[in-house]
Amino acid sequence: MSESPQVTVDVPALSRLLDGEHAEVRNLVRKNLVEQADVLDDQVHLDATAFRERVKDVIQHMASTGATGLGFPQEHGGGGNVGASIAAFETLAFGDLSVLVKAGVQFGLFGGAVLQLGTKRHHDAYLRDLIEARLLGCFAMTESGHGSNVQHLGTVATYDVETREFVITTTTESARKDYIGNAAAHASHAAVFAVLEIDGESQGVHAFVVPIRDAEGHDLPGVRTGDDGAKMGLHGVDNGRLWFDGVRVPRENLLNRYADVSEDGVYSSDIENPDRRFFTMLGTLVQGRVSVGGAGVSASKVALTIAVKYALKRRQFGAPGSDEEELLLDYGLHQRRLLPRLATSYALHFAQEVLVAQLHQASTDPDYPERDRRALESRAAGTKALATWHATDSIQEGREACGGAGYLAANRFAALKADTDVFTTFEGDNHVLLQLVAKGLLTDYSTNFEELDQFGVARFVADLAVETVIERTAVHKLLERLRDVLPSSDDGSDEPTLLDPDYQLAMLRWREEHVLSGVARRLKRGIDGGTDPVAVFSQVQDHVIHAARSHMERLVLEAFTDKVAAASEDPNHDVLAAVRDLYALSTIEADRAWWMEHGRLSSARSKAVTREVNALCRRLRPVADDLVDGFAIPPEMLRAEMLEQGY
Amino acid sequence: MSESPQVTVDVPALSRLLDGEHAEVRNLVRKNLVEQADVLDDQVHLDATAFRERVKDVIQHMASTGATGLGFPQEHGGGGNVGASIAAFETLAFGDLSVLVKAGVQFGLFGGAVLQLGTKRHHDAYLRDLIEARLLGCFAMTESGHGSNVQHLGTVATYDVETREFVITTTTESARKDYIGNAAAHASHAAVFAVLEIDGESQGVHAFVVPIRDAEGHDLPGVRTGDDGAKMGLHGVDNGRLWFDGVRVPRENLLNRYADVSEDGVYSSDIENPDRRFFTMLGTLVQGRVSVGGAGVSASKVALTIAVKYALKRRQFGAPGSDEEELLLDYGLHQRRLLPRLATSYALHFAQEVLVAQLHQASTDPDYPERDRRALESRAAGTKALATWHATDSIQEGREACGGAGYLAANRFAALKADTDVFTTFEGDNHVLLQLVAKGLLTDYSTNFEELDQFGVARFVADLAVETVIERTAVHKLLERLRDVLPSSDDGSDEPTLLDPDYQLAMLRWREEHVLSGVARRLKRGIDGGTDPVAVFSQVQDHVIHAARSHMERLVLEAFTDKVAAASEDPNHDVLAAVRDLYALSTIEADRAWWMEHGRLSSARSKAVTREVNALCRRLRPVADDLVDGFAIPPEMLRAEMLEQGY
Repeated sequence: MSESPQVTVDVPALSRLLDGEHAEVRNLVRKNLVEQADVLDDQVHLDATAFRERVKDVIQHMASTGATGLGFPQEHGGGGNVGASIAAFETLAFGDLSVLVKAGVQFGLFGGAVLQLGTKRHHDAYLRDLIEARLLGCFAMTESGHGSNVQHLGTVATYDVETREFVITTTTESARKDYIGNAAAHASHAAVFAVLEIDGESQGVHAFVVPIRDAEGHDLPGVRTGDDGAKMGLHGVDNGRLWFDGVRVPRENLLNRYADVSEDGVYSSDIENPDRRFFTMLGTLVQGRVSVGGAGVSASKVALTIAVKYALKRRQFGAPGSDEEELLLDYGLHQRRLLPRLATSYALHFAQEVLVAQLHQASTDPDYPERDRRALESRAAGTKALATWHATDSIQEGREACGGAGYLAANRFAALKADTDVFTTFEGDNHVLLQLVAKGLLTDYSTNFEELDQFGVARFVADLAVETVIERTAVHKLLERLRDVLPSSDDGSDEPTLLDPDYQLAMLRWREEHVLSGVARRLKRGIDGGTDPVAVFSQVQDHVIHAARSHMERLVLEAFTDKVAAASEDPNHDVLAAVRDLYALSTIEADRAWWMEHGRLSSARSKAVTREVNALCRRLRPVADDLVDGFAIPPEMLRAEMLEQGY
Repeated sequence: MSESPQVTVDVPALSRLLDGEHAEVRNLVRKNLVEQADVLDDQVHLDATAFRERVKDVIQHMASTGATGLGFPQEHGGGGNVGASIAAFETLAFGDLSVLVKAGVQFGLFGGAVLQLGTKRHHDAYLRDLIEARLLGCFAMTESGHGSNVQHLGTVATYDVETREFVITTTTESARKDYIGNAAAHASHAAVFAVLEIDGESQGVHAFVVPIRDAEGHDLPGVRTGDDGAKMGLHGVDNGRLWFDGVRVPRENLLNRYADVSEDGVYSSDIENPDRRFFTMLGTLVQGRVSVGGAGVSASKVALTIAVKYALKRRQFGAPGSDEEELLLDYGLHQRRLLPRLATSYALHFAQEVLVAQLHQASTDPDYPERDRRALESRAAGTKALATWHATDSIQEGREACGGAGYLAANRFAALKADTDVFTTFEGDNHVLLQLVAKGLLTDYSTNFEELDQFGVARFVADLAVETVIERTAVHKLLERLRDVLPSSDDGSDEPTLLDPDYQLAMLRWREEHVLSGVARRLKRGIDGGTDPVAVFSQVQDHVIHAARSHMERLVLEAFTDKVAAASEDPNHDVLAAVRDLYALSTIEADRAWWMEHGRLSSARSKAVTREVNALCRRLRPVADDLVDGFAIPPEMLRAEMLEQGY
């Protein structure tokens, strides 16, 4: 048990460690947030129409500070630094989340489509105005009938060789563009994703820049815009719908980085396979998922900071005869509710840091290997899923831990909860994303994995030996070296301490390999046995999700462990190691049934994990306030009246 | 595995079974809901001020139909039927939840205080006007500084023998009344809970009827009312704050069923112990908790009905070569996400039915044994906790399962989620309630258990032999008879089928007894070892919660099992048995680590539980629509645009 010695925290050093190399950018954004702090009041008091305008103003003000172009090329007025741009976005997520999402739509999604899918003519035409928020755009991908399955969009673009124009049409009501941020009111342009048909033959989904409103904000001919109306949250974002009735745009409006249509209507692309082409295009938009994942981590930090500080102010019940009641955080249960979640926020922070560094490298290295790029996309998908679910969970627990006060809009949970709720859905439904992760693992990010749908993966795996699937995974190689670390459940003697990071990692690696090979075996057995691939996949699906989650949790723990190891000289080394232990052991505890079922955890040791989690909570209780202060969230962003009151 | 035979559902018979003996009342409320269905639109489109007035109008209209007085005595214009009044409230929870909560405040809390804590003079003066919603009142118990620990309220009432008045004062800012429904705008009267001091001596908390507003709605002298402002949800309820500055009310305004003060200022009560007196008073308000728990079950039904119906309309992804995509509910994962939760809604429905029947009996039987009354209060607390957490969880999963469409206010999740969020807090914080349940178990509902605070419980238990604690519990006696049913994990042979209800119950009973005795042992060991009771309790607290949850889950399964057994001739017997199996096994699965840790589940059998849960999901998939139709929620209440669209 880890009752002693007491850990201490050097808060400024902790903030420096967390802020990392982009501290300057983060502090610039913090300053912007504080200057615009009244937007948090406006969120409560303005009606939706007025608040949308307010949020637009904030975005345009932000653009004037240079904080919005960090990820764009310098020749177009940007900062040329993808890592910095994500750091800015993560920090922006401490503030109002309508501002965040509107910024994400404008600079990340619309800007990202123009930058990544377009070529010089689009960059020259749009980027500078876009970065400065003079040109507002939207990202018109999702349709009412197709969110996750983007390949089957119903919007169609044909080419009219006479006029050298593309003609864009919403073919059915379920093909209307839906939930599109910036579409209901503010966007003058849309990046429209549509199936390109040339001479009646589909070439798959492509993106087009389509003007949708004139200077007065009226719909352009053939375009119909609508409003999604009231939403659960994000009241400052004008989500809307778009219908296209034979809307014509010049041939040059095709975002033609990966494919083009000649004046006389001949289609060409360097990527022959239409599926691969589609996934290559989608892959360039990975930054959006990385950004949302980072925002999820930030939102969880805000929620847990408020909940921890409230638990250090609020007292309830007391020992008989004592005049003073007990602080909430002195209750073991309250520690249990907040501190493992706090450890998870730390863990995800460091995992996100690794992901951002990889993305930054990929964005600056034209020779970044294709396979690594696919692994990066997969990691981005998985991190987004874990981080946004963690946000939902932490905000919910934080609200409940603050009781009735947490329910009032004067405190921040109401907005945090309502605004973040859709994070688990947009930029990819989390369950669909985890299936993408599993697909990558099962196919070893092979060149054709993106083209395989879920049923195709089942067939693909069936064609391999299961051993092949497993031996190619990175974890398998690591595991060979670590086999000795991991005792079987029968072997009670000489067990490594639960606080041994090698042991913790070995546990997560062993689970990952075992779950993954189990999935491969079940898929293979089903297909070999002649079962319909659809039925096989459906029956194995929860196992597939477990494999992906096991993989992601291993990556997260590795990132945290590496960080602690690299911080051996840091004044906060010991406390970070304790937070890492709490993350690792509460993660193992949550799935301890699985390890017991598979003979890797004895019942006695399983109980010891629970005891150690409790002991770590007690150990970290005295530094809980320091740990949340380390996030350096501007106090104005906590906006929690309840923290100002005496109880 | 339970792949066959296929179960079928007789939907009208299922609705009759679920509606039970109060079908007529439920149908009356359904009719009212449909007539007032536009309140669901108003919830989205009206601003808070206008919506509050709208909700008040709905309440007053309801009162005119006779649906609001069911639980009050007939001589005062009521229906004299507590069971019917709760059935009405449960059904009302299919509709807008501001209406529900405002009705709960007016008729349940304020009305309940006058009825249960007052005597004939109060009943004569207030009940008829109150039932007919001509007199609007609020229930002023919670303060900013004291929600859970009501015994330590800061509001004080003294008696002025000169004027024969009570003088009520808010002694500190944290003693202001807070979150009080009806207080911000509509209430003319408040039932104020305050510590009564006579000659400088505290007699504990008592309730007083205090006029707070005049006929024009202005604060009366000495009273200050405030508005809690915007909240996460329940925008139609005017939650507010109250401050009292020496407010004087006649002596007769003390709600004097359990204690009185004579004209010359002498305090008297039939219950000598002030703690016991306090808990006796509180106990009479049990109906509020029963009502909120029932409303939680109803809210989960609405959410799961929408999510199931959407999953039977919406398609996404498809087998290669197939023109049609797959329905969401044909995915194994989607079944996993929705169907065990649906089974839990069924289980909680039947558990709630038992609870309501017990409450009804207690309310009509003046000789209802004291110990049973305490057990009933405990059961109400635990059911409320489980049901409201289930509501939060089902609504969240349902929203996510409906993707972006679930986020729009045009569908019902936005309101459902925001409005129900505080259910886990009001009428008692769920974690505090589960501790109350555990306290009852540990002390066998003994006459003094209510007076013991949590630290006192530790001391109490320490004074007993652990065996005494255990032997007195009901489950212990049941277990004796069932010991044979339960195989140990070593004994692989002759294991009963997982679908044997005796086995399922024996598992839950064994866990309850074992966890409870573990808590008793740990408390005793800590106290005997000289550890501070505060520290002992804090360290054992998560274990305490586990004991309470284990107890409640056993009661829920028993209620479901009894219902199925009694329905042997019902056309829906087999499908109900399958739903019961799904509830039982998914409950066991969720905590299977615990049974493995304690040698009651082998790893092979644990995996079999998971397989059986999946098989039951597949088995129930074809009747999922029938199972939600069985709830007989008026289609207007689903108010989900997404269910009307084609995809």
